[in-house]
Amino acid sequence: MAALFFAEMRYDPADPRGEDNDRFVLSKGHAAPILYAAWAEAGIIPREHLLTLRRLDSDLEGHPTPRLPWVDVATGSLGQGLAAGVGIALNARRIRSDYRTYVLMGDGETAEGSVWEAAQVAVAERLDNLCAIVDVNGLGQSRATQLDHDMDAQASRWRGFGWNAVVVDGHDVEAVLDALNQARDSKDRPTVLVSRTVKGQGISFIAGKPGWHGRALKKGEELDAALKELESQFVAGAEPTPVPQLPRRVSRPQATRGTVGTLPYKLGDAVATREAYGAALPRLGAGDGRIVVLDADVGNSTFSDRFEKQFPERFYQNYIAEQAMLGSAMGLAARGAIPFPSTFAAFLTRAYDFIRMAAISNLNIKMAGSHAGVSIGEDGPSQMALEDLAMMRAQPNIAVLYPCDAVSTEKLIEQMAYRPGPAYMRTSRPKTPVIYGNDETFEIGGLKVLRSSDADAATVVGAGVTVFEALKAHDTLKKKGVNIRVVDLYSLQPIDASALIDCAKKSGGRLITVEDHYHGGGIGDAVAEAVAGAGYTVERRLCVREIPRSGLPDELLDHYGISARHIVDAVAR
Amino acid sequence: MAALFFAEMRYDPADPRGEDNDRFVLSKGHAAPILYAAWAEAGIIPREHLLTLRRLDSDLEGHPTPRLPWVDVATGSLGQGLAAGVGIALNARRIRSDYRTYVLMGDGETAEGSVWEAAQVAVAERLDNLCAIVDVNGLGQSRATQLDHDMDAQASRWRGFGWNAVVVDGHDVEAVLDALNQARDSKDRPTVLVSRTVKGQGISFIAGKPGWHGRALKKGEELDAALKELESQFVAGAEPTPVPQLPRRVSRPQATRGTVGTLPYKLGDAVATREAYGAALPRLGAGDGRIVVLDADVGNSTFSDRFEKQFPERFYQNYIAEQAMLGSAMGLAARGAIPFPSTFAAFLTRAYDFIRMAAISNLNIKMAGSHAGVSIGEDGPSQMALEDLAMMRAQPNIAVLYPCDAVSTEKLIEQMAYRPGPAYMRTSRPKTPVIYGNDETFEIGGLKVLRSSDADAATVVGAGVTVFEALKAHDTLKKKGVNIRVVDLYSLQPIDASALIDCAKKSGGRLITVEDHYHGGGIGDAVAEAVAGAGYTVERRLCVREIPRSGLPDELLDHYGISARHIVDAVAR
Repeated sequence: MAALFFAEMRYDPADPRGEDNDRFVLSKGHAAPILYAAWAEAGIIPREHLLTLRRLDSDLEGHPTPRLPWVDVATGSLGQGLAAGVGIALNARRIRSDYRTYVLMGDGETAEGSVWEAAQVAVAERLDNLCAIVDVNGLGQSRATQLDHDMDAQASRWRGFGWNAVVVDGHDVEAVLDALNQARDSKDRPTVLVSRTVKGQGISFIAGKPGWHGRALKKGEELDAALKELESQFVAGAEPTPVPQLPRRVSRPQATRGTVGTLPYKLGDAVATREAYGAALPRLGAGDGRIVVLDADVGNSTFSDRFEKQFPERFYQNYIAEQAMLGSAMGLAARGAIPFPSTFAAFLTRAYDFIRMAAISNLNIKMAGSHAGVSIGEDGPSQMALEDLAMMRAQPNIAVLYPCDAVSTEKLIEQMAYRPGPAYMRTSRPKTPVIYGNDETFEIGGLKVLRSSDADAATVVGAGVTVFEALKAHDTLKKKGVNIRVVDLYSLQPIDASALIDCAKKSGGRLITVEDHYHGGGIGDAVAEAVAGAGYTVERRLCVREIPRSGLPDELLDHYGISARHIVDAVAR
Repeated sequence: MAALFFAEMRYDPADPRGEDNDRFVLSKGHAAPILYAAWAEAGIIPREHLLTLRRLDSDLEGHPTPRLPWVDVATGSLGQGLAAGVGIALNARRIRSDYRTYVLMGDGETAEGSVWEAAQVAVAERLDNLCAIVDVNGLGQSRATQLDHDMDAQASRWRGFGWNAVVVDGHDVEAVLDALNQARDSKDRPTVLVSRTVKGQGISFIAGKPGWHGRALKKGEELDAALKELESQFVAGAEPTPVPQLPRRVSRPQATRGTVGTLPYKLGDAVATREAYGAALPRLGAGDGRIVVLDADVGNSTFSDRFEKQFPERFYQNYIAEQAMLGSAMGLAARGAIPFPSTFAAFLTRAYDFIRMAAISNLNIKMAGSHAGVSIGEDGPSQMALEDLAMMRAQPNIAVLYPCDAVSTEKLIEQMAYRPGPAYMRTSRPKTPVIYGNDETFEIGGLKVLRSSDADAATVVGAGVTVFEALKAHDTLKKKGVNIRVVDLYSLQPIDASALIDCAKKSGGRLITVEDHYHGGGIGDAVAEAVAGAGYTVERRLCVREIPRSGLPDELLDHYGISARHIVDAVAR
């Protein structure tokens, strides 16, 4: 930390938002106090603030969060920092800055697979502007780490993945500075400093001993003895704190806002919402260089490859590594990009901890998950997302969108790009008819009432593929003389509670939800919560209630109880 | 596949449940047809069943699931098979069997970090009974894989992690058999065959060409040409299919059921539910050798280290690798163990895709997550699980339990151990008073009405730490002459809908939920769904509605609106 903050890194302590500052990610977020101490030493925060650590009224939390302007991504869930560092390093390339990115990890956390996902992407992207440091203190929380102080075994993993690995004594500042120089000189590949340290170095009764992880010194004898030992090691007459080097400052043109522009659809066109997603990205990206797209080797299924074809320099391939994709998106978002990471919605579950931390960080990431629900058909349950709405809606600040046609998809992509904070869009595999005109407008937090009359027997709320089942049910019932109100709930979070309550009022309080999702956490729950304040309930929830199987899409919609026929039955009951 | 199924592996085709059969995991689940074809060849399924592939009425799904008795874990979400293989190999050690475990992966999927989590555990556990095979065909779904056919780069990653890596031509059966022999001879460490293959080998217009991933041949000219080429390669007079070798058969004593026995608690004792979890495990494990415990370096916080001290041979340390822990638990469960993987509830989000696949597999895994909610205090949001109930409840077959005291925790641990299928228990960090007598009984799917009168103004439903806030609110209100009904909803899924409806009826239909969890997918949603059928709603939901901060536990409960004071206010309103 001393070498980084007071010799190696170029940053302006007065300008946390400076685009060209070198960046530091404390992946081992539990070491937050040393980060805050370094800031105090650099004059970023007043020294006396350090004593507010972990207090409700202080931003110096137990683990760093972006409430602090020098923090790009919240850390504290181990193994995420390197992936974020990859995104931050990619951003330097995007804005043509020479800033460097440093990521400090614990040795214990390198057991996390996400570290190795990031490691492979860093090599594939030849990120020589990225420098990782592994603090090999040999101690985990509950026991010695797996590799303890075996520095060769530590380095061998990194070298096996193609990194430039430098083994160094982490207590020898000159050696560390020399290693950082080697890192700066390494071309076309990232460098890791595998740094041997002793936990509690300098305090004889703590150094290298287990049982001190997260334990504070007792005030009195214990603390006094430790301070005395540390103070005895101060070098009399040592130089004052060196000033950090200032970054090269580059002025860049103001970012412009993109738009999907005039849409080309005709009512009734059959277009999968995933295709509309793929069409919207390059349109939006043409007008805004901040728009970047990340893939995990399914771009030809999510249609994000449409963006790749047009803007290959802003398309980042992570291969089959969803955690690296999300982490990289977090880093990019933290530095001003507007990243769209997308894969099959089912495989976003692989990155849920990253999504959770992105929500804690309130980062500007725009996720999209395709191939949702049983409507994907024959590939079977492993490929069907049936819990993605629950997973996303459980985070209070993620906007959750689920459009049913091409027009609403494109319009909502534009909306989500420029709404601050994280957002998620669920797209579908099957082609669905375009039902909205190209001039229709959509707001995050809105809905559309597609069918209504003065005498609606019930309101049926669907989204995505089930909107069309509800419309079919409407037509069937109409022939029998029964009217229903049909709602396209394209925005689950935020949700238009007052419009839903109005629908309930105008249909005798009878609400039915229908969703290509499991029962928990999706449309049924969202609508129930929204209308509860007015005393309404969701009387019938049509949803997938068991682990599904392979089969044909329409066959599965019917088999699992979410087809038009089941809606007709539910209304009848 | 030919080498494995007809020369290398020892298994009895007539006995899928045989404990000593060698095991095969098709981690690249999209290659399911070759697995089904191998079974047909081995006489496990009739050849004509192959034509039912991907039909709703067939168990031969698009990706393999344990509906098929030879499949241990569902695959199709890439990167999970090796972790399951580690668990299956550990199980061999548990039951003292010499069966071997083989895992076939794609090269593309080795980009998944979970593969490297499993790789490190396999080395730490010295699993020489585990053999991985990487099918290096160089083609991903959308493009060439990152390392393409660079066999040295492939092997270097595995060697860097300490594996015995053998590079082999995957089309040379003799070479493959020789490599499998080398794997069997390798002692104290696992072996990987890094196997160079050509996708579509043997069909000139497909071999090595991109664009054929998941694409079927067109009937007619295309199919005829391919079949003709393949048929021309049959060797006339080749030997008939060799018979697989039969495994060594060992008879083992019948498993016995464990129990937590007579509990030692006194009413009012202050015991954290995580401590009670730690106490229950060795009690249960003493009577049942199938009980095993898995950790990710937090056993001293979850208290699973109590089990380690007593039964170290049935305690598996995964270091900080939650995906490896869950995957290994899946493999152990598939082979008859009853695994309890536990970590901080927040970090189970890291393994959500594994949890999803465990649900699809309906495996007997018993998860526990500690340190739930803002009540953990100063460590801050990265360590607070506030979406775990949503994540678990979104899977339709996971039992979701959330006990509030030591007695209910221990009793429910015993219940969850012997309920078939996956289960999750949420435990808390703070100490809470024991409120149940040692003889109290608890059922999964039940609840307890803790306070009630003939004139209850409302029912307050809590679980875990909020039960005590509800009880405090009850006492405060009682002094003001207001009675409330207090429910301990220790089982969220399944949920006792009729008891909740009864409570609603007896308290004027006024339901209030209070939970140390975000708004979506937790107690509020679960109760709302349960009572909707009877026309009731949850009028007020007290829950955490924003990203929280560090602070003291009681301070946070109050700040985020879920303390006794807020319950009193909600009742008043």
